Amino acid sequence: MKNIKAFCFDVFGTVVDWRTGVARAGEHFFLKHGLVDIDPYEFADAWRNLYQPSMQACRSGRRPFTRLDILHRENLEAVLSRYKLDLDALDADELETLCSAWHRLDPWPDVVSGLTRLKQKYIIAPASNGNIALITNMAKRAHIPWDLVLGAEVTQAYKPAPEAYLRMADILGIAPQSICMTAAHNDDLRAARQCGLSTAFVARTTEHGSGQTTDLKPADDWDIVALDFNDLADQAGC
Amino acid sequence: MKNIKAFCFDVFGTVVDWRTGVARAGEHFFLKHGLVDIDPYEFADAWRNLYQPSMQACRSGRRPFTRLDILHRENLEAVLSRYKLDLDALDADELETLCSAWHRLDPWPDVVSGLTRLKQKYIIAPASNGNIALITNMAKRAHIPWDLVLGAEVTQAYKPAPEAYLRMADILGIAPQSICMTAAHNDDLRAARQCGLSTAFVARTTEHGSGQTTDLKPADDWDIVALDFNDLADQAGC
Repeated sequence: MKNIKAFCFDVFGTVVDWRTGVARAGEHFFLKHGLVDIDPYEFADAWRNLYQPSMQACRSGRRPFTRLDILHRENLEAVLSRYKLDLDALDADELETLCSAWHRLDPWPDVVSGLTRLKQKYIIAPASNGNIALITNMAKRAHIPWDLVLGAEVTQAYKPAPEAYLRMADILGIAPQSICMTAAHNDDLRAARQCGLSTAFVARTTEHGSGQTTDLKPADDWDIVALDFNDLADQAGC
Repeated sequence: MKNIKAFCFDVFGTVVDWRTGVARAGEHFFLKHGLVDIDPYEFADAWRNLYQPSMQACRSGRRPFTRLDILHRENLEAVLSRYKLDLDALDADELETLCSAWHRLDPWPDVVSGLTRLKQKYIIAPASNGNIALITNMAKRAHIPWDLVLGAEVTQAYKPAPEAYLRMADILGIAPQSICMTAAHNDDLRAARQCGLSTAFVARTTEHGSGQTTDLKPADDWDIVALDFNDLADQAGC
């Protein structure tokens, strides 16, 4: 712990409750269009399910790096096309507002207090696949006190590609082991550790709803396992 | 003013007093090496004089984009080679410490209070030629409350190249006219205005010492002319 200089955070799921926030925006949109049969949580899950495949196109080189706002928009149109909805008849601003639901997600209740404490001793930054505007707008709305915004648009690489972690360390001018990657997802930490970063696991057992079956526990001997961000601050001596 | 969403700031000279900070680090270094005849302010000016030519190599395409820490190091070695000093005999860490004087510059006295007020209503970010680590370390040390760190390493372009301003607007997802470029340098504002950004001038009349002859006044009808960052916050309705 004593060599850690920066904590870098996964955002979707670890810092914010994306599912509730996206479902809330979806519900509002569907009600307006009389689509009362659509479960907004199923909509949120369906939209999110297209997240990894769309980034994979960039990771594999099939497509140049494309910021997440654009991938989200394409994926949104793909999901909405499954419903009885005339996409071409929709107001462009309305679609954009729905798409930017990802800019208006709420943090888990321990996030702002925990990060505020960690910030006193460490650099704190998002290491998210979200683009800079998305993460910035989210932070301004929710008062998430990042020191700076890192992530895919800065490194031009999507996690879990090694470049996403290694370029972050290079940009910060900090040795990988002195950066603690913090996530609710074991696969993110596994990739970070392979790049030499330190690791902290914070379980978010309702990220996928009450029936969640994945990432309920640490799957490896991560350097830190914390109950929430306040516990993380405790363990980090803040 | 009512359409401004973000204030983006030149840093060296506008936010921090680079000359005093670099001279302070130089004085410490020269004393240690018995070089009592070197004026640390002349050293600071000589080092800074290599700043524009070294970036110009990147702007012109003669050299790929190279972060400022690296240019600063090359320029430092060039300046030190003019003195009676065996560079090869120096400890590498010592040179690195001197080079990172740019990470340890003090802000002008109105900066932290003014930015803290502006942050309540606007996104505030550096739009500096400094690299991310440099600007982040400076902010942590001096408690400069940026929302995020933008600038050359994010846009991969050095001001006053148009890409430095236009990519910043694109990354923020904000129309150029809704971004207010704030600087103590008329040429920075001229380039920003040509890209459609709004402009604010804050004079820093001792950036180059007591005999300063440049940028003492606004050279054009900038959208805002402020006495300091607190006056800027006043004018911005904060």
